[in-house]
Amino acid sequence: MGSLGEKDKMMFLGIDGGGSKCRAILVDIDGNTLGTGIGGPANPLHGFQKTLDSILDASHQALAQAGLNASELNKVIAGVGLAGVNLPALFQQMSEWPHPFAKMFLTTDLDIANVGAHGGEEGAVIIVGTGSCGFVSAEGQKTILGGHGFPIGDKASGAWMGLEAIKHTLLVLDGFEQSSHLSKEVANFFEVDNALSLSEMVAGRSSRQYAKLAKLVLSAADEGDKIALSIVNEGITYIVQMSERLLEKKPTRICMIGGLAPFILSRLPKKVRANFVDPKAQPEIGAILFAQQSWQSTHKESA
Amino acid sequence: MGSLGEKDKMMFLGIDGGGSKCRAILVDIDGNTLGTGIGGPANPLHGFQKTLDSILDASHQALAQAGLNASELNKVIAGVGLAGVNLPALFQQMSEWPHPFAKMFLTTDLDIANVGAHGGEEGAVIIVGTGSCGFVSAEGQKTILGGHGFPIGDKASGAWMGLEAIKHTLLVLDGFEQSSHLSKEVANFFEVDNALSLSEMVAGRSSRQYAKLAKLVLSAADEGDKIALSIVNEGITYIVQMSERLLEKKPTRICMIGGLAPFILSRLPKKVRANFVDPKAQPEIGAILFAQQSWQSTHKESA
Repeated sequence: MGSLGEKDKMMFLGIDGGGSKCRAILVDIDGNTLGTGIGGPANPLHGFQKTLDSILDASHQALAQAGLNASELNKVIAGVGLAGVNLPALFQQMSEWPHPFAKMFLTTDLDIANVGAHGGEEGAVIIVGTGSCGFVSAEGQKTILGGHGFPIGDKASGAWMGLEAIKHTLLVLDGFEQSSHLSKEVANFFEVDNALSLSEMVAGRSSRQYAKLAKLVLSAADEGDKIALSIVNEGITYIVQMSERLLEKKPTRICMIGGLAPFILSRLPKKVRANFVDPKAQPEIGAILFAQQSWQSTHKESA
Repeated sequence: MGSLGEKDKMMFLGIDGGGSKCRAILVDIDGNTLGTGIGGPANPLHGFQKTLDSILDASHQALAQAGLNASELNKVIAGVGLAGVNLPALFQQMSEWPHPFAKMFLTTDLDIANVGAHGGEEGAVIIVGTGSCGFVSAEGQKTILGGHGFPIGDKASGAWMGLEAIKHTLLVLDGFEQSSHLSKEVANFFEVDNALSLSEMVAGRSSRQYAKLAKLVLSAADEGDKIALSIVNEGITYIVQMSERLLEKKPTRICMIGGLAPFILSRLPKKVRANFVDPKAQPEIGAILFAQQSWQSTHKESA
């Protein structure tokens, strides 16, 4: 770690690892981007070795863009935000990784998303994409709400909307419920005309694949379909409750991020929506800020 | 197949194969039981070779009990009822198995359950256990309703009740819904006091494991818990609809079978319950009857 003394050569690497991909960004001491990279899935709950491979792959790409070779990872201070490490056992296992960095600071993907959204300050976020989750950091305390995954939780998320749409369509195709605009759209999407075929098509599919149906639900709701509206409204009610619960912690700001954020935000009651502000930066930038803050605080302690 | 000419030595083997186990029963020409056997899982959708192994294992046990050795399977006429073979591709693959029997007749587990329940006659069944499903055979036409599996279908089933109970308990533990007798029972069952721990406990569990919570839901409903009552009532409504749909086909009889049948039957509206009669025999006996009927009909054709 001798090279870290040369302050002008210090570099920070931000890693945002999730279930589908892993983003890396390398910046110099002044925050100028030197390179970026994208690796595969990086949720240690679904594959520990794969996570390490994805992190290294994304990191090597970022270094190569900066004209550096892989061995120079030992000169960077890494901030790593990963899905799954809210589980203490995985946090521990990940912390024990003999990583190639000068220093690694580890936290959850939620934490770096929040740090990024608020430009390094405390605050709250609601993430609505394939899954849904709430996170708040206020007065040094961090709280997670929801995010329990498919099929038991994550109301208002894309996968949840898709699951509700499939359940309804199966009942329609079996003659238990009346046909709707939504059920027709779902049957068309899968090119099926009976419940058996539909159940075969979706058996064993991932939450990501269910989430592809979210836009059908949202557009059917916009066209006034009652079933789609009831699904969307149940989701909205959950997000309203979640924002109330997060605001109880008195965060200075609250943002909504994730693929469905614009759709959900536009459907919130005006008074609730008024609380939300635009995010300042992406999660990988949050990882950089987290690395810098963690480095400064350990540096201070050891000084 | 020369030995089949010796009519007094003819034997029939009934196989009932499902997701958790495979039952075999061997009978002589007069229907006297010669032996029985139990093998492992036999749903070809979840393992084709395993299914063949389980069928052979259960069959060999039945033969051994009868004092016969495995090679004498070539003297038996087998009726095989399997989960999964309602899917045409699996029916085809299973039919092409170079089986060791003198003759094999293949159908679904639903079909043999129905044949057994009605002692070889046509009729209808509703099966409610880990999953739920309806089946009716009337005037030569067979219809399946529901049975689309966890987590997209199978309302009123044990796995569905368990899933609804988990969803509610997660929302309670996260503070989105009010605590209930049911949520306390579920949290006690898993020995957890927060949503994260509960979601970890149930992540990736099978439908069979979710179904273990059904008795908590049913007993909480009996004690007047509103959430449990609403889950049970939603299930009952579905089963009432299903029985109406099956009765539209004018079956001569209708039965309810499966682990939850007594609980569901006792909660049906009196007028609906009055339609249901007791099943005559178990599915593996249905498989024997199916084999005998199929054999007689091909024998007639070739005579």
